Amino acid sequence: MADKAARRARFEKVYARIADELVDELRKNNIPEDVMSWYRRSLDYNVPGGKLNRGMSVVDTVEILKRRSLTEEEYVKAAVLGWCIELLQAYFLVSDDIMDASITRRGQPCWYRNPGVGMIAINDSFMISSAIYRLLKSYFKTDPCYVDLIEVFLETTWQTEIGQLIDLITAPEEVDLSKFTLQKHSLIVIWKTAFYSFYLPVACAMYMCGIPHTPIPSRDPSKPSQDPYDLAKSILIPLGEYFQVQDDYLDFAGTPEQIGKIGTDIIDNKCSWCVNTALLYASAEQRKTLDEHYGKKPSGGPSELEVKRVFDEIGVRKMYTQYEENAVMKLREMIANVPETEEPNTLRGEVFESFLGKIYKRSK
Amino acid sequence: MADKAARRARFEKVYARIADELVDELRKNNIPEDVMSWYRRSLDYNVPGGKLNRGMSVVDTVEILKRRSLTEEEYVKAAVLGWCIELLQAYFLVSDDIMDASITRRGQPCWYRNPGVGMIAINDSFMISSAIYRLLKSYFKTDPCYVDLIEVFLETTWQTEIGQLIDLITAPEEVDLSKFTLQKHSLIVIWKTAFYSFYLPVACAMYMCGIPHTPIPSRDPSKPSQDPYDLAKSILIPLGEYFQVQDDYLDFAGTPEQIGKIGTDIIDNKCSWCVNTALLYASAEQRKTLDEHYGKKPSGGPSELEVKRVFDEIGVRKMYTQYEENAVMKLREMIANVPETEEPNTLRGEVFESFLGKIYKRSK
Repeated sequence: MADKAARRARFEKVYARIADELVDELRKNNIPEDVMSWYRRSLDYNVPGGKLNRGMSVVDTVEILKRRSLTEEEYVKAAVLGWCIELLQAYFLVSDDIMDASITRRGQPCWYRNPGVGMIAINDSFMISSAIYRLLKSYFKTDPCYVDLIEVFLETTWQTEIGQLIDLITAPEEVDLSKFTLQKHSLIVIWKTAFYSFYLPVACAMYMCGIPHTPIPSRDPSKPSQDPYDLAKSILIPLGEYFQVQDDYLDFAGTPEQIGKIGTDIIDNKCSWCVNTALLYASAEQRKTLDEHYGKKPSGGPSELEVKRVFDEIGVRKMYTQYEENAVMKLREMIANVPETEEPNTLRGEVFESFLGKIYKRSK
Repeated sequence: MADKAARRARFEKVYARIADELVDELRKNNIPEDVMSWYRRSLDYNVPGGKLNRGMSVVDTVEILKRRSLTEEEYVKAAVLGWCIELLQAYFLVSDDIMDASITRRGQPCWYRNPGVGMIAINDSFMISSAIYRLLKSYFKTDPCYVDLIEVFLETTWQTEIGQLIDLITAPEEVDLSKFTLQKHSLIVIWKTAFYSFYLPVACAMYMCGIPHTPIPSRDPSKPSQDPYDLAKSILIPLGEYFQVQDDYLDFAGTPEQIGKIGTDIIDNKCSWCVNTALLYASAEQRKTLDEHYGKKPSGGPSELEVKRVFDEIGVRKMYTQYEENAVMKLREMIANVPETEEPNTLRGEVFESFLGKIYKRSK
């Protein structure tokens, strides 16, 4: 635990450095003081306060790929990529909160709800996104992986925006459960979460380690060789799907002590794995109850209790346990099939085991 | 005029093609039909309806640089870059309209004010911006200029966002003329408009023509050699500033028949060249009138008339004429100093003359 805190502290030190550099760039361009301090405040408010799992996983993955601990210079570069992912996430969260009319985020008011901010938060989210490419240019311009890094961030941004659009169109203001299906849920999860949370950190680490797009032979000789990035994606996307299903499940079944917040998916009309699973097995009467009570506030009110009662009646808890066992089994199989060499800077199963180990049976 | 219409029609045909391609990319990724049609509708509503000057200027500039008319393939590539600039502009306009709570744009309701759109427009603006990089990848991936193009779009996006932030902080909800100065105005204009409207089209054309970042000798032997992109910037940024000052002036002094709309800068509390110039020369009494009446609706109401009276009393019209003569003289001097060769694909003064010719003494 002390080790975990130290790892976080080291990673956070790199944030302080890049925030200074980003603001300094404005200073060099003679941007007025009040504009610089606004930008700094929006970065500090929105970027560093999360769990940082996504960002720190870049550093971990680079270490696994290199099979050794990193030099200070390597650490800083891996951490900069990690912070680029945290910036990408901050860009999405700041704007999603406006689109969802959310009230709080990470235990504080959403950025746009701060006095004097309001819709300026839209431009702030853009500037957070632009910071990614300023940092890539400043830290990787002369590296062979520079273009690959820009491209993977741009492509992931595009994928996440598509996911957000599917989500926004699927769960509009008025409740309409006929729009929800497990297939739609899977699509939203993959596009809105899995690419940026799971594939992106690993792809960044792989590019930084110079892993080429050369196909590597499969362990199973009956299967064709595969581009290592495609191979990573083929494991990390289902892994991300599993992570989000678990997240949805904990929102319903986790206690506030476990998850550090009160679940609001039911009252917020979210296209969650739980409601989609319930819809699949609901009797006509149960369906009627869900139609009537899903997406109705307040938190802990009679509608939410009715929905939770139906979820339990249908057996969503047990279905989740089954889902999880099955998903983890399949992931372990895929990971076991990752070919391995002793060479540093080649892909290895440990990358994926490390992710799975952090997720499996987590309670928060 | 028929020629102008034909040029526009040819350019618009390329839009139809790229919109199809962008939507097709979603189809290939099995994105649901309703999501594809939403995206198509947001592109069609926001991208093609403007004056298209910025976009078409890429094509014009490539022709000038190549010193010949373009092959069909060259035309399409130049037009794609032009549409990337129109996409960038659409991205800004869709989001600026939300931030400014605007009502109409290009004679129709702002996108976010369409039924069922609302804040989803924020994500739509992101997806319009992402389209730029999808197109660059699809049309320029194997070109030597690919990275330069990505970088110049990313950098220009960042610059324009900074301009928007300066503008938003300078002209907040409540009117406070003490925040306005001509220096602030110049800063906003350069960052928010000049880079993307003037430098970006020329830089795109120069990269497409393979012009290297090799310094070229000055015409004036006492001056040092200069990177051609820096040289272009040193002319196009003041040119863009002049363009925006003219735009501000026409908003005040142009008739609705001339400018195709009713000016609203005064009632909207805009940090316009006119009010900044008036503030510089206002007597204590005139200043009092401005403080009292600037930024007050309705259009054509007594406050607006008072402000216009003070502008005329101070002589803003005459000052504009002087400003314009002086700005154009300086620009002509700079343009005359652009070194020239007979070689194709080298920079030449005609690029800038072409821009200046379209702007000087325009009335709309």
